[in-house]
Amino acid sequence: MIQITYIQIDNFGPFTEEMGNYREHKIQILLSEIFIFLQKQFNRYGGLVFSASKDNMIAVSNGISIKHHQLFINKLEKNFPITVSMGIGTGNTPLNAQIEASDVLIAKGSAQSSRKKVLAYNGHKLPIKNSVKVAHVDINFYTKLATDVNPFYKNYIDLNRGYLTLMESFQTIGVLCFFNGGDNFICVCPPSMEPDDLIPTMKLFEFKHKPWKLKAGVGVGDNILEAISKANICLKEIRENHNTKQLMVLN
Amino acid sequence: MIQITYIQIDNFGPFTEEMGNYREHKIQILLSEIFIFLQKQFNRYGGLVFSASKDNMIAVSNGISIKHHQLFINKLEKNFPITVSMGIGTGNTPLNAQIEASDVLIAKGSAQSSRKKVLAYNGHKLPIKNSVKVAHVDINFYTKLATDVNPFYKNYIDLNRGYLTLMESFQTIGVLCFFNGGDNFICVCPPSMEPDDLIPTMKLFEFKHKPWKLKAGVGVGDNILEAISKANICLKEIRENHNTKQLMVLN
Amino acid sequence: MIQITYIQIDNFGPFTEEMGNYREHKIQILLSEIFIFLQKQFNRYGGLVFSASKDNMIAVSNGISIKHHQLFINKLEKNFPITVSMGIGTGNTPLNAQIEASDVLIAKGSAQSSRKKVLAYNGHKLPIKNSVKVAHVDINFYTKLATDVNPFYKNYIDLNRGYLTLMESFQTIGVLCFFNGGDNFICVCPPSMEPDDLIPTMKLFEFKHKPWKLKAGVGVGDNILEAISKANICLKEIRENHNTKQLMVLN
Amino acid sequence: MIQITYIQIDNFGPFTEEMGNYREHKIQILLSEIFIFLQKQFNRYGGLVFSASKDNMIAVSNGISIKHHQLFINKLEKNFPITVSMGIGTGNTPLNAQIEASDVLIAKGSAQSSRKKVLAYNGHKLPIKNSVKVAHVDINFYTKLATDVNPFYKNYIDLNRGYLTLMESFQTIGVLCFFNGGDNFICVCPPSMEPDDLIPTMKLFEFKHKPWKLKAGVGVGDNILEAISKANICLKEIRENHNTKQLMVLN
Repeated sequence: MIQITYIQIDNFGPFTEEMGNYREHKIQILLSEIFIFLQKQFNRYGGLVFSASKDNMIAVSNGISIKHHQLFINKLEKNFPITVSMGIGTGNTPLNAQIEASDVLIAKGSAQSSRKKVLAYNGHKLPIKNSVKVAHVDINFYTKLATDVNPFYKNYIDLNRGYLTLMESFQTIGVLCFFNGGDNFICVCPPSMEPDDLIPTMKLFEFKHKPWKLKAGVGVGDNILEAISKANICLKEIRENHNTKQLMVLN
Repeated sequence: MIQITYIQIDNFGPFTEEMGNYREHKIQILLSEIFIFLQKQFNRYGGLVFSASKDNMIAVSNGISIKHHQLFINKLEKNFPITVSMGIGTGNTPLNAQIEASDVLIAKGSAQSSRKKVLAYNGHKLPIKNSVKVAHVDINFYTKLATDVNPFYKNYIDLNRGYLTLMESFQTIGVLCFFNGGDNFICVCPPSMEPDDLIPTMKLFEFKHKPWKLKAGVGVGDNILEAISKANICLKEIRENHNTKQLMVLN
Repeated sequence: MIQITYIQIDNFGPFTEEMGNYREHKIQILLSEIFIFLQKQFNRYGGLVFSASKDNMIAVSNGISIKHHQLFINKLEKNFPITVSMGIGTGNTPLNAQIEASDVLIAKGSAQSSRKKVLAYNGHKLPIKNSVKVAHVDINFYTKLATDVNPFYKNYIDLNRGYLTLMESFQTIGVLCFFNGGDNFICVCPPSMEPDDLIPTMKLFEFKHKPWKLKAGVGVGDNILEAISKANICLKEIRENHNTKQLMVLN
Repeated sequence: MIQITYIQIDNFGPFTEEMGNYREHKIQILLSEIFIFLQKQFNRYGGLVFSASKDNMIAVSNGISIKHHQLFINKLEKNFPITVSMGIGTGNTPLNAQIEASDVLIAKGSAQSSRKKVLAYNGHKLPIKNSVKVAHVDINFYTKLATDVNPFYKNYIDLNRGYLTLMESFQTIGVLCFFNGGDNFICVCPPSMEPDDLIPTMKLFEFKHKPWKLKAGVGVGDNILEAISKANICLKEIRENHNTKQLMVLN
């Protein structure tokens, strides 16, 4: 089982309207500050937040209790001119847990309404304390193949194409995939997934996005931060062996 | 003419390796802090930064001098454990200006090398002081059609699909398009573009991403912040008229 | 105005079931024979049939009367163990005419039912006798860039990718696009379309499907066969001038 | 092992140029007649031809000797104003066999040259006499979900989108997939492939092309015609059980 928290800024669209028209830069700064704030809260207890669509975020929150979630919500209100709501979901796959997290929050009212500071979850025993499995996927020689040779915007479109392939194909095996900057994709995996199950998607990516090749480090840890830590060790080892392997696992 | 600054964190991959394996959350916070810092610097002089791929950013920098760019670079070094380099490009379209900005920076050395704090530009007279044209595009009734009804990750994939359509199609008319959170796309347009030239891309989006429909507010201003400000006024007016119009322009 | 005929083999799925399990090759031969038969019927009166999804075909039928359509249907029944139904639609664009052609036929009953030999149309005066505008689009140096260097199946996937871009983008301006073998795309255009309106789609194709470049010959004729004939003259002239032009028109 | 024949009409582009400008309908008829002719030749010995890009075709030719291939080529020349060349390839997957078939033919000269009636193959013992594995995939309730409700061209674009997903994803496991009309996809599989290996691609299709669902019948036979025959039996049984199963196999 895995636990996913879906974080939604309350009534964000109407709020930004009230910031006046001269606001785009202020919105971007506010969104980044909220992200940093939430990231630090979740990190303290071993969780990790993905910024996703900025006003809607996803956290892997294994081991983080309802009470702590409530504290995050309360604390955020004290630090920002706006509030957030959260839905906590659990499931045998990150995708299913995310779906539950969305369902419980959606049931509490519209994202653009008077709904404020909701913490939604269903009757499961929380928090889930299972270990977390993560794959850190990156593109071999990305700097040499892309950054150092093409105009940035071309690379950026190509990255987004590749990201879409990963998201679409990985979700068929219950994996949530997030772009974390550079050429780095963090893939939250079902605890029971065999690492080899990542290969078909990686091959599809490589076919569709030539000449890019992928490698993946897979880590298992008590929480997502430890799991990524181990995945990073694998990725580094693959890199130091000149990317001859495509996949390494550290349980 | 328009002026685009391409911002690259120096040697970021190797730097993160030195942060130890237990680092993903620290990287995300650092990237957000750098973004906020740069956003504030550019905002002060009427510029706007798009986070793009996080370690590589794009700014619309009309009116911002070489000297000010140099100050941003120096100031960032004092505030962070890492440095950035920048390339300034100009062109008749944002796409062409971006290409030049990449070209001049790439010519100064690899993103993963000892290259540090480079400010690259070619012999044009800088800064460009032209007015800026921007389209703010969003999806009609996105909250009702997506946020309030579907699991978030489904919406997120759909958004990324739509974003890709916008990027690919808009670039054929020289437009750079950035996702700025929620359902908001900021499109930096060629100064000479007719607003109607946005329509074919919007129609392509609507065909490929049913049932979503787009609207666009187009603004022209002395700098990008003012241009977006006017685009926001248009967008608000379309919204208040129940999205019956698809396009409004404020010069 | 343009006239489009939508041709549907009646109850084809269930019919093939009755052919026994050892049938796939027989189906393919039958479908090709039906296509040849219909092609010859429509050709005689200046029409052209596109095989499309094989059991559902599209014809440009300007100038072909209801009576002649009825004769085609009757004659086909005498020559084949199966029948076809047709819907005739008209519109200011080929896309709209196709939609009407589908609507009138769908209204007569399901494709898998006892419905047989239907000829559907609405109250417009038929046939439409307007001239027809067609673009013949092909890929520059396709043989050298693809056929002679890559495995066929790779080229075939790439062609299908490119075809999809053309279909999706052209339909936003009412154009129906059909792959006619090799690297040839026949694009049936609205009579009032400016040839330059084809350019954004061609640019989108070229961006997405590097290194392929497109050229287009545009012809206008009393019927589609004459229009394609003129489009071919244009295409040949572009080719003989080493593809330096992208678009030529012969009215 | 599997044996694939890649069939190429010799010098087809230049030949069509000589047909005069008023030719598109004649080309389409000629291509269909060549297809029927080749289909019948290969069928006689248990092979099956896929029309693919019309002037370039693919046949599954297990059990068909070099001598018979030569006879097909000679016989075609006597019946048509044009000739074909063929490359025979073998491999552990259809994809690899296709690549070899392309390689040996490409080595004999350009598709647009004086090269004529080439039969290319490498030193392997031919023909391959292994059994053939095929999946027949179709879309559940396609007539009700698509044909009977939407304009044809919309369905046709959607079908092409779906086909592309199948081609791209199946080729990562060595499968060649061909659209054979209606909603039918014939997938030529590696002899050693586990039928379950088809599932991830089918799930990807279902995710990307909602609300469509796929079923697959998998058959193994002495040649492709027998294999499809068995696949059809499976597909029928799934259909008669109201598509509750997704996959059935008959060895």
